[in-house]
Amino acid sequence: MVERRTPIAVEEAVKKVMDCKLAGKTEYVSIFDSSDRFLAEDIKADHDIPRFDRSAYDGYAFLSKASACCTEENPLILEVIDEIGAGYVCKKNIGKNEAVRIMTGAMLPKDCDAVVMLEDVAESSVDGKPYITVTKQVQMGENISYKGEDVQEGEVLVQKGTKINPGIVALLATFGYEQVPVAKKPKIGVFATGSELLEVNEPLEEGKIRNSNAYMVMAQIKQAGAEAVYFGKLADILEDSYEAIKESLNAVDILVTTGGVSVGDFDLLPVIYQKLGAEVLFNKIAMRPGSVTTVASLDGKLLFGLSGNPSACFVGFELFARPIVRTMLFAEKPHLPTATAILTADFLTSNAFTRFIRSRTFLDEDVLYTGPSGTDKSHIVSSLSHANALTVLPGGQTGYKAGDRVQVIMLEGNVN
Amino acid sequence: MVERRTPIAVEEAVKKVMDCKLAGKTEYVSIFDSSDRFLAEDIKADHDIPRFDRSAYDGYAFLSKASACCTEENPLILEVIDEIGAGYVCKKNIGKNEAVRIMTGAMLPKDCDAVVMLEDVAESSVDGKPYITVTKQVQMGENISYKGEDVQEGEVLVQKGTKINPGIVALLATFGYEQVPVAKKPKIGVFATGSELLEVNEPLEEGKIRNSNAYMVMAQIKQAGAEAVYFGKLADILEDSYEAIKESLNAVDILVTTGGVSVGDFDLLPVIYQKLGAEVLFNKIAMRPGSVTTVASLDGKLLFGLSGNPSACFVGFELFARPIVRTMLFAEKPHLPTATAILTADFLTSNAFTRFIRSRTFLDEDVLYTGPSGTDKSHIVSSLSHANALTVLPGGQTGYKAGDRVQVIMLEGNVN
Repeated sequence: MVERRTPIAVEEAVKKVMDCKLAGKTEYVSIFDSSDRFLAEDIKADHDIPRFDRSAYDGYAFLSKASACCTEENPLILEVIDEIGAGYVCKKNIGKNEAVRIMTGAMLPKDCDAVVMLEDVAESSVDGKPYITVTKQVQMGENISYKGEDVQEGEVLVQKGTKINPGIVALLATFGYEQVPVAKKPKIGVFATGSELLEVNEPLEEGKIRNSNAYMVMAQIKQAGAEAVYFGKLADILEDSYEAIKESLNAVDILVTTGGVSVGDFDLLPVIYQKLGAEVLFNKIAMRPGSVTTVASLDGKLLFGLSGNPSACFVGFELFARPIVRTMLFAEKPHLPTATAILTADFLTSNAFTRFIRSRTFLDEDVLYTGPSGTDKSHIVSSLSHANALTVLPGGQTGYKAGDRVQVIMLEGNVN
Repeated sequence: MVERRTPIAVEEAVKKVMDCKLAGKTEYVSIFDSSDRFLAEDIKADHDIPRFDRSAYDGYAFLSKASACCTEENPLILEVIDEIGAGYVCKKNIGKNEAVRIMTGAMLPKDCDAVVMLEDVAESSVDGKPYITVTKQVQMGENISYKGEDVQEGEVLVQKGTKINPGIVALLATFGYEQVPVAKKPKIGVFATGSELLEVNEPLEEGKIRNSNAYMVMAQIKQAGAEAVYFGKLADILEDSYEAIKESLNAVDILVTTGGVSVGDFDLLPVIYQKLGAEVLFNKIAMRPGSVTTVASLDGKLLFGLSGNPSACFVGFELFARPIVRTMLFAEKPHLPTATAILTADFLTSNAFTRFIRSRTFLDEDVLYTGPSGTDKSHIVSSLSHANALTVLPGGQTGYKAGDRVQVIMLEGNVN
């Protein structure tokens, strides 16, 4: 007899997983290794930016009031008594008829309050001494960036849980984070189950197929920001599978298995969850593909029983496993982002379950469109590799037509 | 005297770099390490998918013509003489009154031509032998996936130059790529120049600032798909800088320096390019920020002289260095993708140069909007870290208003 399971809604299934609230941990990594990790603390400014009053341009620093009445006819002539590049500090006293040649970013000399740009003065030399001629009034503060004008010490610049991009690395460097507090990568174990599976390096055999799900899921785990631990494949032998899964749980935070969660003669996972004493959160979801996706919880760890069908396996990971991983990485928005898009193809058959269509979205001018990433037979196999989104078609009495506005879940990955 | 440089258009500068056509190289990595690398060859199917005729569902395989006249009143009764899970092959001969219990994915026994689903039969037992009762006609081929129906041997499934995502990893596993041909990561050296720079682990000093550009550029290099080699920072001393840069060129394919490319007293790069005998492709671009971005070529290597200003440095890398890196990774579309978006802020001041505004794009329903990622002072420093796009405002006589349709360059990075 085929076991009858009662499907729950996708949102309910997601909520059941997220309610498990696995906690994230912090570790420190060198700034060199920090990009693409997730911040475990807010980035705070440990000093003002600029840290000192500095010149915004290459020019000459002087005391602005000396230029109060100056014009083409009544120019101000200043002796240039020092020259400072960025990183150097002028140690001289500057009189009111004196100026300092100053480069962009250099600290404003203490007796000066303005900078006149190189291109706005005439340079000359008298008796080997350099002079400049200023022919219009320069205001106090002109061409100066003042201390604390951009950022004040203590300001929060980036929130905890943000993925570290190149701009964030620049902030980390600016504020002296040689070691960066990041979320520790959760360890996620992976088993592929099924006697029909051959490993990638095994020769083909009659009746068998190569294990592709485990490799795919490991790439998804890496993309989610976690660390994958591959435990290999399990033949459909109950006792062996049970022992291997039980043992593996000691080494990981989360365990993913692919295959074996349906109600067929060789679907062993339901029995194994029972034997382990794991609490099954759900084993049937009103979705396609992936309706048999099962999640169980045991001693603060989660066991994801993903379908053996590659698309179902992929979708199951993205919808249910990725968000809990991101929570462990302190992300404020753990779910994949969604958008509205215009459907480019018909899906006329109605379906009681919500469908997640492997899709390719594209912007035509400023409007987002979505269509299936597989359009002919060979794409059954490769449509996942071409997808950048999942189009969500809620279940119900009617189908969908090209031109309908639908929700899309944007997949992470390369933009091209 | 300030040197006068003649600016060239952004497109022309990009073309000059791309015309250098640095060649990519191939290496093999384990499938475990292949994700996020770039394919150095097309992925070809080395066998049909399915590789053999197989059952699409859990059910019973038999010879369909036996069911030709069967109805509720005139049912077909078949003895179940074998049971096969996926991965197993039925070795028995199946007579016309016999059937084989078969699981999804298992190979169709040789004497059978159809599968009836579990839920469509009644199961029974007589003298300990299992039987099924079929009450409606089953067509030849029903519930069978035929050999080669999805993919035929030799088909190209993914193009060379594609970044390997989880779906592609699944294809690589399916087709036995234990070792995956990928583009070798170009080696890109990085120097930060400027006597004002302190390293991230150095204590702050009066007049100096921390080096943030080098760390940012290293993260950009990694994101582009290349390997960064950090050579440290250079003080503004010509001979030392020249020697260090000359020496470093032996170890890398591309060299990036930040700072020192303008026309100030301490901008040494122009002199160094001359001393090296490098051909300067351009040293002034009609863009803001980054107008002083300089690119030079020497012995088949490229030297990118990026501005010392963080935003200019960032934009210079993304516009000019990233595409040539992607070319070396065999990408068909080496440039960042562009889209049209609706501007959310005014930029009323006209500018002769094309501006690249650090921006945050967002989809509101199905329409794309773009606005500056920095809206208040502190964002001058952190706007790069919040940006997911550059808004392109071509130079000209007039400014831009909220509601105008503009081009945006989408930055790579996390979707959230």
